[in-house]
Amino acid sequence: MNANTSPVVTTSLAETMHLLGRAAREAASVLARCTGEQRAAVLGDAAATLRARCADILAANALDLEAADRNLIAPAMRDRLLLDETRVEAMAVALEQIRALPDPLGAVLADWTRPNGLRIQRVRVPLGVIGIIYESRPNVTADAGALCLKSGNAVILRGGSESWHSSRAIHECLVAALRANALPEAAIQMVPTPDRAAVGHLLAGLGGTVDVIVPRGGKNLIARVQQDARVPVIGHLEGLCHVYVHTAADPEMAREVVFNAKMRRTGICGAAETLLIDAACASALLPPIAEPLLAAGCELRGDEAACAIVPGMTPAAAEDWRTEYLDAVLSVRVVGDLDEALAHIREYGSGHTESIISADPVAAERFLAELDSAILLHNASTQFADGGEFGMGAEIGIATGRIHARGPVGVEQLTSFKYVVRGAGQTRP
Amino acid sequence: MNANTSPVVTTSLAETMHLLGRAAREAASVLARCTGEQRAAVLGDAAATLRARCADILAANALDLEAADRNLIAPAMRDRLLLDETRVEAMAVALEQIRALPDPLGAVLADWTRPNGLRIQRVRVPLGVIGIIYESRPNVTADAGALCLKSGNAVILRGGSESWHSSRAIHECLVAALRANALPEAAIQMVPTPDRAAVGHLLAGLGGTVDVIVPRGGKNLIARVQQDARVPVIGHLEGLCHVYVHTAADPEMAREVVFNAKMRRTGICGAAETLLIDAACASALLPPIAEPLLAAGCELRGDEAACAIVPGMTPAAAEDWRTEYLDAVLSVRVVGDLDEALAHIREYGSGHTESIISADPVAAERFLAELDSAILLHNASTQFADGGEFGMGAEIGIATGRIHARGPVGVEQLTSFKYVVRGAGQTRP
Repeated sequence: MNANTSPVVTTSLAETMHLLGRAAREAASVLARCTGEQRAAVLGDAAATLRARCADILAANALDLEAADRNLIAPAMRDRLLLDETRVEAMAVALEQIRALPDPLGAVLADWTRPNGLRIQRVRVPLGVIGIIYESRPNVTADAGALCLKSGNAVILRGGSESWHSSRAIHECLVAALRANALPEAAIQMVPTPDRAAVGHLLAGLGGTVDVIVPRGGKNLIARVQQDARVPVIGHLEGLCHVYVHTAADPEMAREVVFNAKMRRTGICGAAETLLIDAACASALLPPIAEPLLAAGCELRGDEAACAIVPGMTPAAAEDWRTEYLDAVLSVRVVGDLDEALAHIREYGSGHTESIISADPVAAERFLAELDSAILLHNASTQFADGGEFGMGAEIGIATGRIHARGPVGVEQLTSFKYVVRGAGQTRP
Repeated sequence: MNANTSPVVTTSLAETMHLLGRAAREAASVLARCTGEQRAAVLGDAAATLRARCADILAANALDLEAADRNLIAPAMRDRLLLDETRVEAMAVALEQIRALPDPLGAVLADWTRPNGLRIQRVRVPLGVIGIIYESRPNVTADAGALCLKSGNAVILRGGSESWHSSRAIHECLVAALRANALPEAAIQMVPTPDRAAVGHLLAGLGGTVDVIVPRGGKNLIARVQQDARVPVIGHLEGLCHVYVHTAADPEMAREVVFNAKMRRTGICGAAETLLIDAACASALLPPIAEPLLAAGCELRGDEAACAIVPGMTPAAAEDWRTEYLDAVLSVRVVGDLDEALAHIREYGSGHTESIISADPVAAERFLAELDSAILLHNASTQFADGGEFGMGAEIGIATGRIHARGPVGVEQLTSFKYVVRGAGQTRP
């Protein structure tokens, strides 16, 4: 199928989507039984195909960019949509990196023998069928498809309509690689229409064929997914991350970690949004922490005490403590002690990632033990909240739910397990 | 509050339920930080209180039984509702057994150090707030409350209206033990009204305060929960378990395991519902397998080939292969080979538990590897599908979903984890 022809949809959308689900379920059953070498070979071939078809992909991308320019989309969004040879090469390299990860499947996670001689093993298996709903980054098509395949799952991809042609061109490369390795093409499917109603069908689970939904995108997308999904969702709503500078913080470390946590990249979910600092050290430490932030163009919104210490701050409003800026803005609050910091984070945090800067091991251990965010750091930047930085290889996102996966979601987190029990004729008394 | 007075509900049901949720969330935060000794002490005290208040509990149970008799409920249901001194003692013993389980919290599930020196640990934490919806077994009030407390979770219990007085009397014992140990009473709450609309509020998540719903009951209850829940559900819909007698089965083992898998207890989810037997051994093995079943009053519903071999069988209808009898009925089908058995189980199974009886290790390993039910057994009875039999201690049920927990759900399965990362000032490049 050529990248810029529309699909022929002869049946109703509901039928089309249910057929997609059934095909995915059948493909999942084949994937669960194929070898890790087969799955890896597909990823290697997909990387080669992406490189070989780079011109086709860029042509498809040009169609998306033309439409984007006609619709006057925001520059940041256009940049996310834009592909060039370097970005296509980066996608191919990412596929090769996922290919090189250890095969997560078949691992024996636990192994014990009962007094009656039954030997019980917990063995890792794929989740089954994963629905991925994302916005307009075309590279997610390659990344998400590859992570699901690596973990033995069939996937149904539903990308943003803005990246329709680009995503289809990339998807065709993945399908060609599946075909070349005699694996079912339905292992990686794209919803064959930009119709938004398709998302509703996917969220409803396509007649019980979808095991889990992974949303990748902004707050509105994820809120809709969490509201409408009838199948489990792995994802995060917000990354309202805190850095707490404790009175026993090393001043230089505090300055560097806060700057990095806020400014390394402001648009990622692990970026710090609120700085809490102990009153006992605020007059000494806040000015040197604030200075490089202000110099780098970061707006600081402080409570009364913070504004009194640093002249360049603007007063924070109540909603600032609940705001994930994803921008060069940081709210700053002076707290009385560790307990007040913990209470603030419990009240306003989103359960994503928090960091304490302190040379006091007792304070640090309380912070790590008493908070229950997915990721808690001591003396390190919140921007380490990332599957690659955790050594998990590529990730499909950071989960803040408490079921199944929390923190970075890599290939291991896209798996389930089953119990295998070996006996010698045991019956239960 | 006396066990047989109705609660005073002065606010709307929605308000009442949301207050319950908020109180549970606050209690969960306290529970997550208290020690395993404190949680264990509550369970010991609760067992003692159950014994001390046995007469009160039986008096409350008598009220439920009177209402049940007025409503002419089925004898099996009346038996599930009935308490006596032996059953109250059994509840107390169950609490002590849960008390004695190892504390699941705080365990370090993984521990690694990155090249940049960051040390990352995955540490087990509670799920948070669990909603348990169950039918009219009063003992579930004690069991479920205790399992959730042991794993550090706050729980909101919603039992069947038939066991209203009994469950409240048992619940009061748990609350007294929480109070005696200075833990929040809201750690174990009961929905304070038998109004069925309360279930809808619970399934909607009580304003984001409920982390997971665990249903315990029949197919209708679980189907409603899976349909209406807006929070994740851990549970199983059906246990349509298969035993497959392979051509290389030991005849005596096949006879004993099939009998036990069907007849030990017919009403539990791990009871076998369908027997598959290879054509090559059916004429030799099916008569000795069928004989003790028929003698014990089990109805056998066979396909044509099975009926031709065993005269006492009735012909199976198409819906038999999809029916979880939970009774002394077994469907029997003669299959051509392992592949046909696997295809049958994939088509009709509910993903709960399946067993192969075979002396051929190649056939057995294919069965264990290629099926993806939660529990797969070789040469053992499907009735081992049980947390106690797995060595997990008490269980809250068997999960057949693929997210979070599968198979027996014990205290470890009622937990989540968080990442604790210790650094020395690392910033992300």
